[in-house]
Amino acid sequence: MSHILLTGGAGYIGSHTALELLNAGYKVLSFDNFSNSSDAALQRVEQLSGKSIISITGDIRDEQALRQLFTDYSISAVIHFAGLKAVGESTQIPLHYYDNNVAGTVTLCRVMREFGVKKLVFSSSATVYGDAKQVPIPETAPRSATNPYGQSKLMIEHILEDLVRAEPDWGITLLRYFNPVGAHDSGRIGEDPNGIPNNLMPFISQVAVGKRDKLSVFGNDYATHDGTGVRDYIHVVDLARGHVKALQYLEKNQGIEAINLGTGTGYSVLDMVKAFSQVNDIAVPYQIAPRRPGDIAICFAEPTKAKMLLGWQAEKTLDDMVGDSWRWQSANPNGYKG
Amino acid sequence: MSHILLTGGAGYIGSHTALELLNAGYKVLSFDNFSNSSDAALQRVEQLSGKSIISITGDIRDEQALRQLFTDYSISAVIHFAGLKAVGESTQIPLHYYDNNVAGTVTLCRVMREFGVKKLVFSSSATVYGDAKQVPIPETAPRSATNPYGQSKLMIEHILEDLVRAEPDWGITLLRYFNPVGAHDSGRIGEDPNGIPNNLMPFISQVAVGKRDKLSVFGNDYATHDGTGVRDYIHVVDLARGHVKALQYLEKNQGIEAINLGTGTGYSVLDMVKAFSQVNDIAVPYQIAPRRPGDIAICFAEPTKAKMLLGWQAEKTLDDMVGDSWRWQSANPNGYKG
Repeated sequence: MSHILLTGGAGYIGSHTALELLNAGYKVLSFDNFSNSSDAALQRVEQLSGKSIISITGDIRDEQALRQLFTDYSISAVIHFAGLKAVGESTQIPLHYYDNNVAGTVTLCRVMREFGVKKLVFSSSATVYGDAKQVPIPETAPRSATNPYGQSKLMIEHILEDLVRAEPDWGITLLRYFNPVGAHDSGRIGEDPNGIPNNLMPFISQVAVGKRDKLSVFGNDYATHDGTGVRDYIHVVDLARGHVKALQYLEKNQGIEAINLGTGTGYSVLDMVKAFSQVNDIAVPYQIAPRRPGDIAICFAEPTKAKMLLGWQAEKTLDDMVGDSWRWQSANPNGYKG
Repeated sequence: MSHILLTGGAGYIGSHTALELLNAGYKVLSFDNFSNSSDAALQRVEQLSGKSIISITGDIRDEQALRQLFTDYSISAVIHFAGLKAVGESTQIPLHYYDNNVAGTVTLCRVMREFGVKKLVFSSSATVYGDAKQVPIPETAPRSATNPYGQSKLMIEHILEDLVRAEPDWGITLLRYFNPVGAHDSGRIGEDPNGIPNNLMPFISQVAVGKRDKLSVFGNDYATHDGTGVRDYIHVVDLARGHVKALQYLEKNQGIEAINLGTGTGYSVLDMVKAFSQVNDIAVPYQIAPRRPGDIAICFAEPTKAKMLLGWQAEKTLDDMVGDSWRWQSANPNGYKG
């Protein structure tokens, strides 16, 4: 039986997807350079599922290593998570981002092509909508980039679109993630960022667990119900299940489709803080700070295409998101290093 | 004394620029994989100039080879010509284009950075203006891509812009070429395309020399003075001198500038055919064919930024363009292979 190759399989979304794939009966092969992830995540996925994962250490920019991988294992499809994802960092070291994300994806696709593997699920992002002019955001909204990270995702979308135009027997889905949060409800796997978290939920969790003093809320004068920014938070287990559905879609379809993975509902920063405090009965001190340049007021998905095409929709609640985040963080205050 | 590194130095524009650089007193180091060029071009440049060129065979995607190059030679600046350039081919093998052009440029810049070489003249193209809405086209016109070749040039512009934003001590010029034609007036170096020429002038020359039956003129119902498409043809020696000027500009300036290299004057397909026939006293049989999808009616540059910033403007005439093209083609009917 063939494997599903997960590049970046040990990362936050990769590990949760690995678990859902194993639960759905797939064989999982992970290829990860562990630059921002831990093999412990995959070991815990094995424990949770009672099944084994083949974990290979390697970099998608290493063409020879990829060739060896495709030579050694039978691979039917690739879910391509590997990539750098910190917006701020991307403005500091853009070449590193373009090398890892764009050149890495080109190398991966060239090797896939060489080995006749033409099914690909790609981790895109709602960042490709740039400063979206209206919400909810449909997949047909104009695309633009506001930083090198977003530019790299947009470039990869263009490259994959050109690839399918040239070779229509590829099947590719561009999954545009909104704001993944939460953790598996076992509390055994979750988000384990290096250094200061870039995203809201791990920051809230680290404040709650005492690793950080207080949360900075960037701007409380946006045109939203409480003045703080509104985003479409999606539970990582819902997101992971979306990947399984996308894979099953590609088993029957060719061509390329961009598909939003979001809930269609927006919550503000303060909504998240309040829900976290109430559900988990723990204080989350915060202070209001100036707006961050580039932040927009409101962003949430039009999620109906995923339902129509993949038969998928988000099922977890806000309480699940904040409860599972805390279960993971409180049981693993230092992430996988603890 | 340091060298100027020319990637793709043996190509059409690279070889003409090598000659102008040698004439201006620079030392030239060429790095070329000869995928679409011949070492004979560099040998002829050496004969014409009476000076020598260091020619290294290698590929810009080969990071180790680039490191070796920067270790072995003192390099003060890079003029980056290397890249694939056939629009039609790019739609057939887009991954190959993105790999060579985009990933290759990222690798080149990463190695330049490693060795502290931060002056770069990049071969961009007027193709980044997409379907330009008005002429003449200034550098500030909106950018878009209509094919993978153009997309690759646009991506590289974005990457280099992000690089300079992150590291302002780089000096980069994006030279947006309009339609290079002609040859050195010695007739010793010129354009030597593989297979069927993609561009008008080598096609005209090959018809004139008897290698092709007749020219197809794609569309004679455009809104132009004679119905055929109008382009901004620029003599390759003018273009080459623009690179020398850009290099001298970078010796004194940091930051990034996009600069059109065009004449500001448009000629139609039939203007070119007529001038070629008259100046060279040779028939160029042609037939009218349907429009090609994606072709626009009129495209010519607003060339004043190059004059202001670089002190450069095109000096060669239409008669020079068609005369020099024919001198090269008639003396070298099979290009460098002859």
